[in-house]
Formats: sequence, structure tokens, C-alpha cells
Amino acid sequence: MIAAYPLTTLATLAIVLLTFIFSFRAGKSRASSGVSAPAMAGDDTFERATRVHMNTLEQMVLFVPVLWIFAMLVSDLFAGIAAVVWLVGRVMYSQAYMTDPSKRTAGFMLGILALLITFVWSIVMVVMGMMAG
Amino acid sequence: MIAAYPLTTLATLAIVLLTFIFSFRAGKSRASSGVSAPAMAGDDTFERATRVHMNTLEQMVLFVPVLWIFAMLVSDLFAGIAAVVWLVGRVMYSQAYMTDPSKRTAGFMLGILALLITFVWSIVMVVMGMMAG
Amino acid sequence: MIAAYPLTTLATLAIVLLTFIFSFRAGKSRASSGVSAPAMAGDDTFERATRVHMNTLEQMVLFVPVLWIFAMLVSDLFAGIAAVVWLVGRVMYSQAYMTDPSKRTAGFMLGILALLITFVWSIVMVVMGMMAG
Repeated sequence: MIAAYPLTTLATLAIVLLTFIFSFRAGKSRASSGVSAPAMAGDDTFERATRVHMNTLEQMVLFVPVLWIFAMLVSDLFAGIAAVVWLVGRVMYSQAYMTDPSKRTAGFMLGILALLITFVWSIVMVVMGMMAG
Repeated sequence: MIAAYPLTTLATLAIVLLTFIFSFRAGKSRASSGVSAPAMAGDDTFERATRVHMNTLEQMVLFVPVLWIFAMLVSDLFAGIAAVVWLVGRVMYSQAYMTDPSKRTAGFMLGILALLITFVWSIVMVVMGMMAG
Repeated sequence: MIAAYPLTTLATLAIVLLTFIFSFRAGKSRASSGVSAPAMAGDDTFERATRVHMNTLEQMVLFVPVLWIFAMLVSDLFAGIAAVVWLVGRVMYSQAYMTDPSKRTAGFMLGILALLITFVWSIVMVVMGMMAG
């Protein structure tokens, strides 16, 4: 079944990889900052890296199911494009957050845009499908 | 494939939407409370909104995969009903948490009930399927 | 569709169950420690139990989609084996973290190993599939 969705499959793996990289950076920041587990605060760089990771995790948990629903109801190609927009947004978000948290909005909104477009389009497709029978 | 599961698809989108609304509220509480990123504490309303969001995220990550397994092994209709119970529980949980965190148990348990019923029923179906074939 | 993947289905349910058990323990630690919601810090056992839960959640959100991609591209049996490795790693991680957080690395790395092997193998399969077709 998955063979019909190569771009969505690759996109999912890329989303997992980016989130993994963010978690890895947060782990490294913990080590270099000297904040011992289980503490989650006490060093600004560690806290920023942790927030980028957690916020990306929060977003991917919403985006991945919607992306697959969208791929199946619309197309693998459009899902791949939406995922690229999402990934670019997340990289921008991360870069901004690490240098100046107040500038993180643009990247955040790009990810939300990818989520909302795939979400609304999917809802329309499901409802049209149910009405058609 | 997804066309055979319209209610589970709609339910998944509704779960994503509710979690998104909770994350949006947490973000707004951060702005109105004046707690600057990356700090996660310092204002009671912001902390409650954050906890509702995070707890819902924690639960949806468990519930969504189980819901789809259940839909495929049992039925789309029953999965839709379980999701409605879950969603009602989460809205109750949120309302209670924002007004008085000590009253959040009833809504929490409703969500857990939906999770446990779909979980146990799915296990039974998988094991019966393996024994039959 | 899911009937073709009984081991991956059972593995997913086991991953959900383990994460649920960790969340349950964190909730119980909150109660016995006397840390009132929405506070997330103030008692070492509660903080450790919370970190084990959250870290497992962070890992399962990456592992479950990769596991299903892997099962569909490689085999249900190998996905089941990878999931057992992941689960053992997570139990080791939990045991170590609760007694001495500095010893949590071995269990953590076992989970990461299961993730990386299924991840890389899946990438190879998708790319080979795209080149072939």
C-alpha cells in the first residue's frame, strides 16, 4: 500500500529525522550546559534547544496524521510539497529560536500554514466523499 | 484505503483540531501572561493551558494509533463513537483544569476509558486473528 | 490491510501500553509527592518518572511511523523484532533513570539503535523502489 505514496513516505522519514536532530541537539545542550537530569531548566541554550524540539514534536504529532490523510484523499505529490513547506518552516523556526526567540514567528507560521491547508482540504474531501455516497 | 474509514478519518481530524486549539490557547496565554520564551513557568493560567495541551498531546499519541487499529479490526462506526467519547472527555478535562485543576479527574477518566476499551478489544481481535490463521 | 501485519499491530499496542504505564506512574508520583497541578517540578521521584514518560513519548512518536513504514517495505517479522529491541531498551532506560539518571544511556541507545536501523533500511527501500519504478 505504501508503495503508492513514495513522497509521503520520504517526507515522513524526513520529519522524523529533523525532530530526531532537534532532540539530539537538546541532549547535547544538556551535557554541555551541566544541567543534570531530571532538571529541565537552568541554562538558556539548553532551554531553547528543548523548546525547539518539543514544539516541533507537538507540531509533527498533528501534521503527520493529517499529511497521510491528505496524501490518500488528494495526492502523494501535493503531500510531498506540503511537507517541504512544513520542513522549511521548522528549520527557520529553529534557527530563529536559537538566536532570538522573539523572531520565531515566521517559521512557526509556515508550519501552521502547511498544517491548515492540508487539514481544511482533507475535511472538504472527506465530506464530499460522504455526500457522494 | 482511507475511503473505507470516513468516521475514523473525521475523528482523527477532530482530535488534531482540538489539540491544535489547546496549543493555540497555551501560546496566547504565554503572550498575555508576559512569560518570555523559553521559560515554561511563572504564570498560573499559562501553566494550566500548557498542561491541558501537553496532557492532551500525550493522550492523542496513544489514542490515534489504537483508534486506527481498532477501526480496521472492528468497525469504522465504533471507532467514531469511541473518538466522540474521547473528545468529550478531553473538553471536560480542559474546562475543569482551567477553572480548578483538582476537578480534572472525570474528564481524564473518560478519555482513558475510550483508550482502554479500544485497546483491549483490539488486542482480543489480533490474538483471535492469529489463532484463526 | 492491518491483518497482514499482526506483529507490527501487537508491537504498536505494546508500545502504547508501555508509554501508558509510564504516564500512569508519573501521575501516581505526582499524587504521592504532593506536587499540585500545574506544577511540574519540586520532587525528584516525580520529575524522574515524568522525564521517563516524556522521553518515551518523544521516542515513540518517531519510532511508530518508521516501524509501520518498515513493516510495509521490509517485513512484519523484522518490524516485530525491532519493536522488541526498542521495548527492552525503554524498560532498561526506565529502570536506570529511576535509580540513577546517569546510568540511563545504555537503554536509551538500544531504543535509538532500533530507530536508526529501521529508519535507514526504510530509506534504502523507498529510494530503490523509486529508482526501479
